[in-house]
Amino acid sequence: MGKLWGSRFEAQTDALMEQFQDSIGFDQRLYRADVLGSRAYAHALHRAGLLTADECQAIEHGLDQVLQEFEARAFRIAKTDEDIHTAVERRLSELVGSAAGKLHTGRSRNDQVATDTRLYLLEQIDLLDRLLSEVQGAITIRAEAHLGVIMPGYTHLQPAQPILFSHWLMAYFWMLQRDRDRLADSRKRTSVLPLGASALAGNGFPIDCDAVAAELGFGDTARNSLDAVSDRDFVGEFLFSAALLQTHLSRLAEDLIIWSTPSFGFIEIDEQYATGSSIMPQKRNPDALELLRGKTGRMNGNLVTILTVLKGTPSAYNKDFQEDKEPLFDAVDTLRLALPVTAGVIATMRVRHRRMEEALDDGMLATELADYLVTKGVPFRESHHLVGQVVRLAEARGSTLRTLALEAYRGIDSRFGEDLYGVLDHKQAVLRRSVPCGTSPSAVKAQIERAKALLGHDAGSI
Amino acid sequence: MGKLWGSRFEAQTDALMEQFQDSIGFDQRLYRADVLGSRAYAHALHRAGLLTADECQAIEHGLDQVLQEFEARAFRIAKTDEDIHTAVERRLSELVGSAAGKLHTGRSRNDQVATDTRLYLLEQIDLLDRLLSEVQGAITIRAEAHLGVIMPGYTHLQPAQPILFSHWLMAYFWMLQRDRDRLADSRKRTSVLPLGASALAGNGFPIDCDAVAAELGFGDTARNSLDAVSDRDFVGEFLFSAALLQTHLSRLAEDLIIWSTPSFGFIEIDEQYATGSSIMPQKRNPDALELLRGKTGRMNGNLVTILTVLKGTPSAYNKDFQEDKEPLFDAVDTLRLALPVTAGVIATMRVRHRRMEEALDDGMLATELADYLVTKGVPFRESHHLVGQVVRLAEARGSTLRTLALEAYRGIDSRFGEDLYGVLDHKQAVLRRSVPCGTSPSAVKAQIERAKALLGHDAGSI
Amino acid sequence: MGKLWGSRFEAQTDALMEQFQDSIGFDQRLYRADVLGSRAYAHALHRAGLLTADECQAIEHGLDQVLQEFEARAFRIAKTDEDIHTAVERRLSELVGSAAGKLHTGRSRNDQVATDTRLYLLEQIDLLDRLLSEVQGAITIRAEAHLGVIMPGYTHLQPAQPILFSHWLMAYFWMLQRDRDRLADSRKRTSVLPLGASALAGNGFPIDCDAVAAELGFGDTARNSLDAVSDRDFVGEFLFSAALLQTHLSRLAEDLIIWSTPSFGFIEIDEQYATGSSIMPQKRNPDALELLRGKTGRMNGNLVTILTVLKGTPSAYNKDFQEDKEPLFDAVDTLRLALPVTAGVIATMRVRHRRMEEALDDGMLATELADYLVTKGVPFRESHHLVGQVVRLAEARGSTLRTLALEAYRGIDSRFGEDLYGVLDHKQAVLRRSVPCGTSPSAVKAQIERAKALLGHDAGSI
Amino acid sequence: MGKLWGSRFEAQTDALMEQFQDSIGFDQRLYRADVLGSRAYAHALHRAGLLTADECQAIEHGLDQVLQEFEARAFRIAKTDEDIHTAVERRLSELVGSAAGKLHTGRSRNDQVATDTRLYLLEQIDLLDRLLSEVQGAITIRAEAHLGVIMPGYTHLQPAQPILFSHWLMAYFWMLQRDRDRLADSRKRTSVLPLGASALAGNGFPIDCDAVAAELGFGDTARNSLDAVSDRDFVGEFLFSAALLQTHLSRLAEDLIIWSTPSFGFIEIDEQYATGSSIMPQKRNPDALELLRGKTGRMNGNLVTILTVLKGTPSAYNKDFQEDKEPLFDAVDTLRLALPVTAGVIATMRVRHRRMEEALDDGMLATELADYLVTKGVPFRESHHLVGQVVRLAEARGSTLRTLALEAYRGIDSRFGEDLYGVLDHKQAVLRRSVPCGTSPSAVKAQIERAKALLGHDAGSI
Repeated sequence: MGKLWGSRFEAQTDALMEQFQDSIGFDQRLYRADVLGSRAYAHALHRAGLLTADECQAIEHGLDQVLQEFEARAFRIAKTDEDIHTAVERRLSELVGSAAGKLHTGRSRNDQVATDTRLYLLEQIDLLDRLLSEVQGAITIRAEAHLGVIMPGYTHLQPAQPILFSHWLMAYFWMLQRDRDRLADSRKRTSVLPLGASALAGNGFPIDCDAVAAELGFGDTARNSLDAVSDRDFVGEFLFSAALLQTHLSRLAEDLIIWSTPSFGFIEIDEQYATGSSIMPQKRNPDALELLRGKTGRMNGNLVTILTVLKGTPSAYNKDFQEDKEPLFDAVDTLRLALPVTAGVIATMRVRHRRMEEALDDGMLATELADYLVTKGVPFRESHHLVGQVVRLAEARGSTLRTLALEAYRGIDSRFGEDLYGVLDHKQAVLRRSVPCGTSPSAVKAQIERAKALLGHDAGSI
Repeated sequence: MGKLWGSRFEAQTDALMEQFQDSIGFDQRLYRADVLGSRAYAHALHRAGLLTADECQAIEHGLDQVLQEFEARAFRIAKTDEDIHTAVERRLSELVGSAAGKLHTGRSRNDQVATDTRLYLLEQIDLLDRLLSEVQGAITIRAEAHLGVIMPGYTHLQPAQPILFSHWLMAYFWMLQRDRDRLADSRKRTSVLPLGASALAGNGFPIDCDAVAAELGFGDTARNSLDAVSDRDFVGEFLFSAALLQTHLSRLAEDLIIWSTPSFGFIEIDEQYATGSSIMPQKRNPDALELLRGKTGRMNGNLVTILTVLKGTPSAYNKDFQEDKEPLFDAVDTLRLALPVTAGVIATMRVRHRRMEEALDDGMLATELADYLVTKGVPFRESHHLVGQVVRLAEARGSTLRTLALEAYRGIDSRFGEDLYGVLDHKQAVLRRSVPCGTSPSAVKAQIERAKALLGHDAGSI
Repeated sequence: MGKLWGSRFEAQTDALMEQFQDSIGFDQRLYRADVLGSRAYAHALHRAGLLTADECQAIEHGLDQVLQEFEARAFRIAKTDEDIHTAVERRLSELVGSAAGKLHTGRSRNDQVATDTRLYLLEQIDLLDRLLSEVQGAITIRAEAHLGVIMPGYTHLQPAQPILFSHWLMAYFWMLQRDRDRLADSRKRTSVLPLGASALAGNGFPIDCDAVAAELGFGDTARNSLDAVSDRDFVGEFLFSAALLQTHLSRLAEDLIIWSTPSFGFIEIDEQYATGSSIMPQKRNPDALELLRGKTGRMNGNLVTILTVLKGTPSAYNKDFQEDKEPLFDAVDTLRLALPVTAGVIATMRVRHRRMEEALDDGMLATELADYLVTKGVPFRESHHLVGQVVRLAEARGSTLRTLALEAYRGIDSRFGEDLYGVLDHKQAVLRRSVPCGTSPSAVKAQIERAKALLGHDAGSI
Repeated sequence: MGKLWGSRFEAQTDALMEQFQDSIGFDQRLYRADVLGSRAYAHALHRAGLLTADECQAIEHGLDQVLQEFEARAFRIAKTDEDIHTAVERRLSELVGSAAGKLHTGRSRNDQVATDTRLYLLEQIDLLDRLLSEVQGAITIRAEAHLGVIMPGYTHLQPAQPILFSHWLMAYFWMLQRDRDRLADSRKRTSVLPLGASALAGNGFPIDCDAVAAELGFGDTARNSLDAVSDRDFVGEFLFSAALLQTHLSRLAEDLIIWSTPSFGFIEIDEQYATGSSIMPQKRNPDALELLRGKTGRMNGNLVTILTVLKGTPSAYNKDFQEDKEPLFDAVDTLRLALPVTAGVIATMRVRHRRMEEALDDGMLATELADYLVTKGVPFRESHHLVGQVVRLAEARGSTLRTLALEAYRGIDSRFGEDLYGVLDHKQAVLRRSVPCGTSPSAVKAQIERAKALLGHDAGSI
């Protein structure tokens, strides 16, 4: 058997052209979706009177066999199998004969491949959501375990104000929570059955699309067949969500890479996630983190790929759309490794409280001093200005805010009093920030509780 | 008054550095959001006992004045106004004196700029949603008006099967509907108040964030201050939605550009949306369409910009994030023109039924012939094969499917009968595709009804 | 033997982490470059007195054996072979024992992988340059063969002025010539030997880098070891050149896709480069062209990948850089198919002169008319204006420029005379454009001659 | 006067459409190029007998006046001036009457805008090349001044081996040198005159394109008119070079941001390039560096914009190409600030030798120890393994390589001798790396000399 579509052709396809256009090399992984979709379509044909009960059963058994062969890695791709749909149909016809030839009644590869890709992605989204919740679980556990630890908070990578280490950790919890929300939103638009659209104009036979959707677990059916065969929004939306998720991981990685340098020494990542050097025997490089950061490249690349592919294509199906799959698969594969690696890094890293504490300098209490003046009735803009002068004076004298003498303070403004030294305390500074999103222990504890509620039973099981 | 933050500095900022870092050139447009946010914050400070009733009222009046000056284009930017926040605060202090200095109590530009940007975007999303619905309205009206028109449906830009012109139009309705859904989803994540996060660690004063959120119309408040000051996901999400929306417009444009060539002649766009040539007097170029297609470039570029900016930045605020605004504003501005232009093009284009009908050839009825054999009991794969041979034979003989003699058909397969000529009809082909997403008049009519229900009262008013 | 770098580690690498970081899956293809680079380095170590003649010879033989095993597909990747460098070194040590352990003296994987990647790319650039010249050859042959054919020239996809079909073809010749120039320019910067940079600080042994460069065919040696190990500019530059090249192919494809529609019918691509439909037996889709267009997506994606990876990485080597290879390999693989497919499409497509001629309408002679008035002394801007009125009048009367009566012309401007009808000729219009870049037959012939000179002996051999 | 092209139109352009398509808002800056190009074209028309000497002179004077008005900011844009070409032509016709109407003879906006853009870019490339050399000059001066300073070299941001601070600096010199080379290469392909291509088919009058090219300073003339009007490769190539250049700046910025943290303290950037905080009075944020890093976003975005615009456009001119200008201008503007800011940061930053020295730990001498064993005849792979054990033992004992007792060493391998302590010296480690690209003072001095030779007289003048 040659190509499915070859009977009107006289010439053979050019050999390089075959390589150029065949997709079996990467779309094989859709085998399960293709078999499930075909089974549901067989049922629909049967209900529409286009397959007898016997034919339908034969096809079902044949498809079961095909699925088993794939799962046992026993399925043999033939040279003419240009894509997974052809491969399954070819094998089915070997197994069940002419009934297989009826399976394509009213169905085109255009609606079939769209159905398969959506089925595949729905399953992957669910898996990735679980992996995300496991990273969140690891974050929550560490955040709860280290609640007492104070560290420098940075903006512009310069010391800003003291914060709880757990507060820093939880910032990533909420980023990942948005990633989960975005995946859930995109899932709704993925869960729309295109089968029934046929090539572009709709199925010419009375197929019950709602029943097929129900059998396959789709939440809705397509409204317009032209749109259905060319809609790759769901791929783009997934790839965007994946790119933003990886961007979050890249920021986490950046923090930890910097904090793993001896000059910071806040964190030590576990050897399981580090590698050595081929030439420098002392090295322990945070490779896992660098890859989490670097893989943002491919994620942004995958997103640009699909957007470029779609730009300016005429309506309905174009062959260009075959280019949707490799970026999609690459993004899924990357995340299926990146997320557990992230969870592992977080769960196993050593947190060096001492080094964090040592890095708490007086400078990051300057805001406390300005707020102190506010309580004395000084407008904040003025108090900010006065404390700026204090900072400058302290630097000039080689003092810190805590060692600068009271007269020096009073020389700048007489509203400074002895009690100013009381506010120059990192713990106090943390305690004061008790708004719900703030870094005070009570607020962070409430964050953690809310996080655990979101994770449900998962949190405990990690 | 110099820079807000300058008192600890000895040196002046380098002049080129000032140009490099100032954002007032582009963030001016946030003036309204900045004033509203400041007013709400003043109320919060008053509730927290940090402003007296008089101070609060003075600030309110001052802010009203600032807003009026902006709206009357009478606001004068000073040389030291590096950004809109500084400009508003500077002017307010001129107007109300030292009370203005209290407005920054516990508030940082980090949470302020995030609040302003979100407020701005929420308003723009609502506006864009309305503009989208107007494009949808124009589509629906034309789809309803031309329901009887049959045209060639294309896949791979080759004639495939006959479809209704209205079916083609409605495909774009559903693409835009997904765009609206995506904007609505991203709106939820935009509608989260970051105020209260202060610089990074949370406000040190007992500000009631829920009350501020309620006053400003935010749906939720931020959970974590570190995240709140550096979360630019909402910008990325909007830019992605904008890029995909523009991609849809580019596909519409591509169809119409091709159909506007004399060789097709299916469509004539109105002169209001065309331009001439500086050298060729006969020209009428579909510039509006080419720009709709070409502007996908800047939309993809804007998305890549924000993703590149965010990649690998340390947690909390970094100056890099200032680079979020220009792509955001550019995307908003582009869509605010592109959408009404699209609506106008659709509402005013001439649809040339005759040319569409003339392009309906027999080839696109081949599937009808294959389906005909299916009704005679031939498995589809076999019937496809047989019809392929028919097509080849017809081509060889210079015939079409309708002019090919019955014997010729029967020479290929004896199951062909006289009745085959009955299915070779474009109108029949359209009628047969009556699944809900199909191109049959009844199905398309149902699509249009559903569309009108979604648009509600809007549809009528266009 | 475990990992090369493992002796200071106590813990095992996490299993998922291994998958996450191993590159052997894709960097295997560098085997030849790795062997050649190692051989040249062995010579350098020998010259530096760090290998005896016997050891050097043993290593040479061992490397020959490794190379043969790879080329015979007999090389067995071991579980601990995390990358190609480890694999080659591991196998070499099995073959030649402890001498293999000396090969890494002073060499790091950092300079080794950079060397291998450059060696690989130099070879691929040369191959791609040849494939490009073959596409140019196919263009030149067709351009020469069809020199007499006039077709409509388009701007904005609207008929503009008549041109030679060969002129259109040759436009692509020059785009590809720029692509070759860019590749040649980027080749200079690729041909710089990084070996000797070691991990980051330079080789601690007196290696003669110039000799290594000469042996391996590099044009220069790196100036700075820190830069040498982290310079991926050459990858970026290649990926940009590849993206722009694919963009040119996408434009060629777009022209041909549109011209292959029955409404145009200017071109018929050969069946070798077309495919059929799984459901519509009549279909012959220009898949090759759609893929040439669609693959611009992955090319742009690959470029964005490397730029994103590099952004904001600290100096010297970071693991992120491992992400350079997959986009590079993908771009090479894509072009190695896309270019011969393009050459094949061009060489085999049918050019339908008749359909081109039929599409030549009078409108595209309007510029001739304006130029005619210029020869009567009318300033061009005025003549353009007058001809615009002529066009409008002709349309209103259902005439064309050639059938519009002289009085009608003279009613608009009395300078129109009987001789105006003489310039309304497509052939004349083409002949007049005889500036060197113009579409006149003599100018296009000169273009072709110049092209053949550039191709040298290649042109004849295609 | 209305639009140039309007006489065949009946309808007015839609008001929003005008905003959508007008380019005068951004292409004004091409005024100088437009005037110069028009002057050269007037000369060509005169030589071709299409302008009298008087007309030519009138046009010249008129263009001089237009130029002066622009440079004096006295030029008034009219409502109908849709682009800079229209504006100049309109004003010229006010100044010189009907002769102005002859200037467009044989010239189209298609070849005119391409000429203007190239002229503009050629000038900008030359300017940017000079700005680049000034950054290189600043690097070279600092590298020479600090030649004795040893600091930790990092890979994976972990301490690797000691290097000279000047070696680190010079790594950026060579990156920028490649940027200059790339700009020079792209300049060749920019310096090709498209004038003469007219709308798409070539000028119908005997214009001497070589003379125009010579007058305007172009190195070559276009080969093919269709290509000439749609070739935007030079824009893409510039935007790629700009993106890679900004990527280099982002890496420099990343190093300096990290080194400016108190935990590192290697560098202090001057206050001229830092800013404070609106709320934290102690802050001195390295804003210049963060912007250098963040602006990589817009550069990558601009590149993606042009590539997306060009993808899949039909041959010859399309309105889409108008979208080339804003990304081009944005990239030029950004670099014109970013480069001097970079030079300023480098020239003024404080280098804290002491902190660099304090960060030199024993671990980064492990390679010295492995190389020491090599000199004792141990194969490197084995010596790497043994030193790995030493490192582990030292860590376990709380020792460093220098404090670990000789017996401990000999317990691991008896080939360790008393002399091992002699190699454990950071200065020695630097001195040993004397290959041309290495970090030894002599090699770095040679690098600097070569750099100064490349910069020529420039270096002295900074």
